[in-house]
Amino acid sequence: MEDHIRFDARERTLFLLDQRLLPEQEHYVACRSVEDVIRAMQGMVVRGAPAIGVTAAWGCVLALDAVDGPDWQELLGQKLSLLAKARPTAVNLRWAVERMQRCLQRTLDSAGLEREAVLPAWEAEAWRIQREDVEICQAIGRHGGELLQDGDTVLTHCNAGALATAGYGTALGVVRGAVAAGKRIAVIADETRPLFQGARLTAWELQRDGIPVTVACDNACALLMGKGLVQCVVTGADRIAANGDTANKIGTCAVAILARHFGIPFYVAAPLSTIDTDMVDGSAIPLEQRPEQEVTHVGTARICPVGVPAYNFAFDVTPAAYIQGIVTEVGVLRPPYTESIRRAFDRG
Amino acid sequence: MEDHIRFDARERTLFLLDQRLLPEQEHYVACRSVEDVIRAMQGMVVRGAPAIGVTAAWGCVLALDAVDGPDWQELLGQKLSLLAKARPTAVNLRWAVERMQRCLQRTLDSAGLEREAVLPAWEAEAWRIQREDVEICQAIGRHGGELLQDGDTVLTHCNAGALATAGYGTALGVVRGAVAAGKRIAVIADETRPLFQGARLTAWELQRDGIPVTVACDNACALLMGKGLVQCVVTGADRIAANGDTANKIGTCAVAILARHFGIPFYVAAPLSTIDTDMVDGSAIPLEQRPEQEVTHVGTARICPVGVPAYNFAFDVTPAAYIQGIVTEVGVLRPPYTESIRRAFDRG
Repeated sequence: MEDHIRFDARERTLFLLDQRLLPEQEHYVACRSVEDVIRAMQGMVVRGAPAIGVTAAWGCVLALDAVDGPDWQELLGQKLSLLAKARPTAVNLRWAVERMQRCLQRTLDSAGLEREAVLPAWEAEAWRIQREDVEICQAIGRHGGELLQDGDTVLTHCNAGALATAGYGTALGVVRGAVAAGKRIAVIADETRPLFQGARLTAWELQRDGIPVTVACDNACALLMGKGLVQCVVTGADRIAANGDTANKIGTCAVAILARHFGIPFYVAAPLSTIDTDMVDGSAIPLEQRPEQEVTHVGTARICPVGVPAYNFAFDVTPAAYIQGIVTEVGVLRPPYTESIRRAFDRG
Repeated sequence: MEDHIRFDARERTLFLLDQRLLPEQEHYVACRSVEDVIRAMQGMVVRGAPAIGVTAAWGCVLALDAVDGPDWQELLGQKLSLLAKARPTAVNLRWAVERMQRCLQRTLDSAGLEREAVLPAWEAEAWRIQREDVEICQAIGRHGGELLQDGDTVLTHCNAGALATAGYGTALGVVRGAVAAGKRIAVIADETRPLFQGARLTAWELQRDGIPVTVACDNACALLMGKGLVQCVVTGADRIAANGDTANKIGTCAVAILARHFGIPFYVAAPLSTIDTDMVDGSAIPLEQRPEQEVTHVGTARICPVGVPAYNFAFDVTPAAYIQGIVTEVGVLRPPYTESIRRAFDRG
């Protein structure tokens, strides 16, 4: 599953596998402008922090395609600013746009103010971001795979798999890394309301890979842990603060508290690009609220009575104290995270 | 909502409001035999421990309607035995059948072995069970209402309302009791996967009563508690062991552990008929597993890939240590429950 984000350079089109329709349909959405990309992100055609980062890089390329004339830099800046704000929680979005902006600056500095010089440099940078993301996930898999024992069942929440990255996955990268090392690993996929990324996407990916997966309602977590059916929890992350507090899909915090209660290790798997060292702790991480309709309806079927409101916070923050380790491409960071994260960035 | 279980004595038919179709449709299922009643229970036309008890009493009446001849007592016994086992977790089912059997014995003892003498006595007993259940819920509401403060928001899981009882409700009875006492109470209804009893039934009931209600995905619980949006949790129960361990809808245990984590009181509201004093603790309570399809599909829409299995435990057990109090018709029982439950039964 490494081609779910695919840029066609000749057609100047970014094809995104529509994750809203999986597993029933494999349909690609064609994005021909950065505005298309923003819509696709906001509509959850593509989701998952690293995948959003990679998609954003291609969004930058499409933005540059569309600007011309003497004001091109200003116009481009406006588009990138909208792109960077398309979704608030995953810091990889901002990270990718900033990386593309640094690349722009380097190119302009070396090649003068030529828009034409920037385009190939940007395409190359977007490719690099995409390819690096797969390599980073594979490194996460190697490091994290060592945390799992032969025969373990791993519970994961939401989808932090190939579909949430450029390929291979972060949390599912850890599972794949252990399987690649010859361990028998089974997965329990929390279904992950309201959009069922666990039941739809995680189950689909693992089934394709032949890794045993069983879906469970989010609220079954305590029962399954209490029954001894879970040996380890691994989730992804949308933004990690400098102290290790981790924003991830709504429900992650509950899983972490329950894991602690039942004495089960809880790990976060994420690239360093998900760590926002500007943020001292998790309290200031913006948590996106999405349309109520995602909760009150499933597909076109209404669940709630007309007129009853619903909460739809898309993310919550798991305190660092509940996280046994953060699996990154440079290794497993351990508490105290303020120090281990700083060391990882110094090294990185 | 006190007529969702309605016996028509002339038509010898039990009409059950089909809870699977709410809130979209108000449709009644007609049960003309105990076999119809068993099917309705197993198919979740009616659910909720006290409502299952009341329905079972009427099931007994329909069973008696259908038996005749010299073997009527044996035939009846076979039917009642199937009825008592229709669903395994809610003890009110067995309780109601046993109460009807005691009534049968009393009637036979006093009137000889006449089937004709039993029928009116049984109808009267079923009416009593139904009417008493409403009165019990109202008493639960009076006692439990005192636990809530003006302005509180109560989180509840599943539906322990009028629809789960003969009327008024247990957990929602507590909310209604507080509102009747002039307090402003709002409710957060966990949607309660897989069958959405919270989003569908709790929201519908409270909206009809004009009590403010907001629906949330089950996995939002930690976020909402952490934000200070919940002052108290009240749930119903399907079976309470002699030490206070409480089986209730899957997800209740997680809510209780999270409530403890966030310092929020967690109460169970249930009639004494939900307490199974034969059961020393919760470890032996049978937990029903229901068809995977309830998890893998929503309505007719498939969520999971074909061939991926799913857990569907319908209940979990909340350890007594996480329960601040059990609100019954004789008052709020407090830990240690082994003693307070014994005293309540001695008194009752």
